[in-house]
Amino acid sequence: MIWLQRRLTLEPRSRGLHLVTRELADSLPELGQVASGLLHLLLQHTSASLTLNENASPDVRSDLRAWLDAAAPEDFPWSHDLEGPDDMPAHVKAMLTGPTLTLPVADGRLALGTWQGVVLCEHRDRGGPRSLVATLWGQAR
Amino acid sequence: MIWLQRRLTLEPRSRGLHLVTRELADSLPELGQVASGLLHLLLQHTSASLTLNENASPDVRSDLRAWLDAAAPEDFPWSHDLEGPDDMPAHVKAMLTGPTLTLPVADGRLALGTWQGVVLCEHRDRGGPRSLVATLWGQAR
Amino acid sequence: MIWLQRRLTLEPRSRGLHLVTRELADSLPELGQVASGLLHLLLQHTSASLTLNENASPDVRSDLRAWLDAAAPEDFPWSHDLEGPDDMPAHVKAMLTGPTLTLPVADGRLALGTWQGVVLCEHRDRGGPRSLVATLWGQAR
Repeated sequence: MIWLQRRLTLEPRSRGLHLVTRELADSLPELGQVASGLLHLLLQHTSASLTLNENASPDVRSDLRAWLDAAAPEDFPWSHDLEGPDDMPAHVKAMLTGPTLTLPVADGRLALGTWQGVVLCEHRDRGGPRSLVATLWGQAR
Repeated sequence: MIWLQRRLTLEPRSRGLHLVTRELADSLPELGQVASGLLHLLLQHTSASLTLNENASPDVRSDLRAWLDAAAPEDFPWSHDLEGPDDMPAHVKAMLTGPTLTLPVADGRLALGTWQGVVLCEHRDRGGPRSLVATLWGQAR
Repeated sequence: MIWLQRRLTLEPRSRGLHLVTRELADSLPELGQVASGLLHLLLQHTSASLTLNENASPDVRSDLRAWLDAAAPEDFPWSHDLEGPDDMPAHVKAMLTGPTLTLPVADGRLALGTWQGVVLCEHRDRGGPRSLVATLWGQAR
């Protein structure tokens, strides 16, 4: 059996949805030792989130951002507005998309669909670096 | 300990929300050998998703679909429209509901609530068969 | 290795979003024995849900509730209305936020971000006590 838990930091990104599949895989070379397993990711923030979505067309990711901006607009009658107009919308978007992912690992790599990539959803204008806890477990090759 | 990973295919379904609890359990007879465990499911697609919801009344599932159709309409000003009017709404709905589920297993079966069922959300008009990776682990009976 | 599965009951709460991090940790003293692990939670209901969000300002939680109430209003043209006007909106909100969470455990406690708390989203006016299955696994200290 393999068991690994590691804290990672994702570099700061602009507001929007960003593919991070490769950055994550590069930070977890031990994926290559797993015959059959799972990888769990927790983003330790409440104004950014993780999702799986289209890995090919950047248009899809910008449309997903446009939809989220329309669904949780800055001019909703928020009570909590001390941290800037992008703050409460960010909490709503993080609630809708979620801060965790659990992904299967097979034959040394993430067993995603052909068109699936891991997406960091940065909901703040200046979110800064984002902390993540990665836990990997399963059967060794 | 039990450890199992298997690729499954869900048969094609029409656009809408469909109960698949029984189809999944039938594809995973090893659930019966688990005293206490977990089952992880990844749907390997970005225009269909998995959720847990009401297993009794079909009205609930058609209302959930009606809400999703209203929330992510085909006439939103999408940039990405090459793959048909149902494509970008499908990506949004998949983001909102998510492609993964992790479910407890106890005494040889899924330990869901009385009214909970596993629901395949097919967001495309013609989604075709859907691929899934199932991972089961825990303590043997 | 540690392996534990336990059924818990969360006390009845009013409609809204409630921090339950401490109540959960108190029900799972075995967290203290885990060097590195994961905790999975399933809420066995389809009209309440679990999410991670802000643990400090109650304003954030009331704004999240206000957004959910606006997104899934009681006066949507629901077909399923036998169980009261708060029922179908509750199913939608539960679909959006989800009944499960998987959280890392490190050095004997939940490895959440500084501002993250476990939130019970009670979407019914009178939801009553809520049942939960907790599964904990990992490496012992």
